[in-house]
Amino acid sequence: MPETNIEKFKKGREALNEIVLRYGGRNIKRFFTIDTQVYQEGAIPKKYKELLGLVSSLVLRCDDCIKYHIIQCKGEGVNDNELEEALAIGLVVGGSITIPHLRRALQAWDELKDIE
Amino acid sequence: MPETNIEKFKKGREALNEIVLRYGGRNIKRFFTIDTQVYQEGAIPKKYKELLGLVSSLVLRCDDCIKYHIIQCKGEGVNDNELEEALAIGLVVGGSITIPHLRRALQAWDELKDIE
Amino acid sequence: MPETNIEKFKKGREALNEIVLRYGGRNIKRFFTIDTQVYQEGAIPKKYKELLGLVSSLVLRCDDCIKYHIIQCKGEGVNDNELEEALAIGLVVGGSITIPHLRRALQAWDELKDIE
Amino acid sequence: MPETNIEKFKKGREALNEIVLRYGGRNIKRFFTIDTQVYQEGAIPKKYKELLGLVSSLVLRCDDCIKYHIIQCKGEGVNDNELEEALAIGLVVGGSITIPHLRRALQAWDELKDIE
Amino acid sequence: MPETNIEKFKKGREALNEIVLRYGGRNIKRFFTIDTQVYQEGAIPKKYKELLGLVSSLVLRCDDCIKYHIIQCKGEGVNDNELEEALAIGLVVGGSITIPHLRRALQAWDELKDIE
Amino acid sequence: MPETNIEKFKKGREALNEIVLRYGGRNIKRFFTIDTQVYQEGAIPKKYKELLGLVSSLVLRCDDCIKYHIIQCKGEGVNDNELEEALAIGLVVGGSITIPHLRRALQAWDELKDIE
Repeated sequence: MPETNIEKFKKGREALNEIVLRYGGRNIKRFFTIDTQVYQEGAIPKKYKELLGLVSSLVLRCDDCIKYHIIQCKGEGVNDNELEEALAIGLVVGGSITIPHLRRALQAWDELKDIE
Repeated sequence: MPETNIEKFKKGREALNEIVLRYGGRNIKRFFTIDTQVYQEGAIPKKYKELLGLVSSLVLRCDDCIKYHIIQCKGEGVNDNELEEALAIGLVVGGSITIPHLRRALQAWDELKDIE
Repeated sequence: MPETNIEKFKKGREALNEIVLRYGGRNIKRFFTIDTQVYQEGAIPKKYKELLGLVSSLVLRCDDCIKYHIIQCKGEGVNDNELEEALAIGLVVGGSITIPHLRRALQAWDELKDIE
Repeated sequence: MPETNIEKFKKGREALNEIVLRYGGRNIKRFFTIDTQVYQEGAIPKKYKELLGLVSSLVLRCDDCIKYHIIQCKGEGVNDNELEEALAIGLVVGGSITIPHLRRALQAWDELKDIE
Repeated sequence: MPETNIEKFKKGREALNEIVLRYGGRNIKRFFTIDTQVYQEGAIPKKYKELLGLVSSLVLRCDDCIKYHIIQCKGEGVNDNELEEALAIGLVVGGSITIPHLRRALQAWDELKDIE
Repeated sequence: MPETNIEKFKKGREALNEIVLRYGGRNIKRFFTIDTQVYQEGAIPKKYKELLGLVSSLVLRCDDCIKYHIIQCKGEGVNDNELEEALAIGLVVGGSITIPHLRRALQAWDELKDIE
């Protein structure tokens, strides 16, 4: 079975993270730790934290970050309606300049369905 | 009783919205309608939609938008822990450049407590 | 005759728009409608509206949006001098960080000439 | 007659520009020259260049830049409809995060009418 | 002797930092620690780290962050020429949209001289 | 010997710069001149100017600009520790949204070592 785009994305991300950890000192490593911690289950359920990460990434227009949170959202059981409502907020807040990223967000979401 | 900062903020906002509606044509008015619609109760509860609006506003660093969503979050029953966790995500995603806005977000949150 | 980059861009955009419309609810669809309306002929001629869209896209640094408006500008009869002057404003407002996008904007403009 | 907000804005801007020129070296001075040049009458009429500056400033959310171009637009004879259409493009491209700036843009525009 | 703008800025900052620490949990506190650590003397001298913070703040257009690093730069012995060269890089990278912030940066720098 | 990514990047950049110069008028050309001038040796050594360019590019999240300054930093003798400390400042200022660019920055830095 050929490798999916999602699998390629994950592998590429891991390979580059290795380079970051090789060069990164204490501050960069600590930052990565906090970056993991803030999305853990807490007063806000993990599912909504991933949606917060997704919408932040959409309004700041970072495709890699969007794709990562799309995958996480799927894993946390976000459904189509929830995703659509979150992306609609991002689109309104961030404007039409986010549309190319919105397209790729939904493309990744759609690919995740085929993998199921 | 003297007017609070929050009350001043609301009045100033309304006064300026009147100017926008006076000059705004069909497209601007439609945009304002959608901007209200996306935060309505739906598959995602209104509370989390306001948090999505808040964190988006924090990473994009808009004080007025942050203050508006802080007030809305209070109205939707967001508690201290939920607010802190949402702001922590915004801080990590958006970086130290968001800190002055984070300070003012928590200042507004604190003022809302005195009003209660 | 092989497919040009411009044709590939248009097809890819259409394919992804279909995915957006499949998942998108009422708010996202309304947003897309307004996004079309604001560029229609009005008090400001369509040609200048496309230049407004182009320069906004340049200062916000969105390659897809730039390419789309470059194609629209060509269709509205924008000439080399007008394009250069508009891009110069975008470059000055947005700074050297826009240069990679300016390069790709002019590359797309150049490709459109070969198609004529 | 008391000083208007617009007059205060202009004086404050001039006072600070003097400080910039006192400290600024050759590169900063050259940048300021280009910044003036790009808005001169050319293949694109000055009026539309000011609208390009205005919309760029709106999507990048800089109140001082917006106010400056609002004043320039008035001077170039931009009318209410043209202004509204340009701002609508900025609002759609830049999203609801631009609304506080849109409000202040129209407030400044409104103040300019009282001065007439 | 009346309080200077710089002193007011420092006091206001401290007062708000107290609010942040009152509400902030472990992740926010850790972030503040890293934010202090990255500017410490190291392979890059502290002086240049403050200039890195200053130019980053200029291109991202955050007045509070700019003012903070301007004060730090003064404390690290940055001279007029060094400051001007660093700001010129920020101006070119970030474009004319940074000019209002550049003005306020130099105004703060100028005020620091009067305090000496 | 096959062409490296770095060589491809340089060639692509030159090819597109030719297109810019073909269409670019006086203002665009002057801008390019200033863009070269601000990084010249001065009160701030060239090495630190390149680091200022790099960190600005990281917080503004422009991969092409980052890659360009990474190459320049290597040429100016920046070592691993200096690079890491500069990137850590960029990461903290700009937040986790810069991580995908940080990864690619270090990937380019790593490739430059293989070329040596």
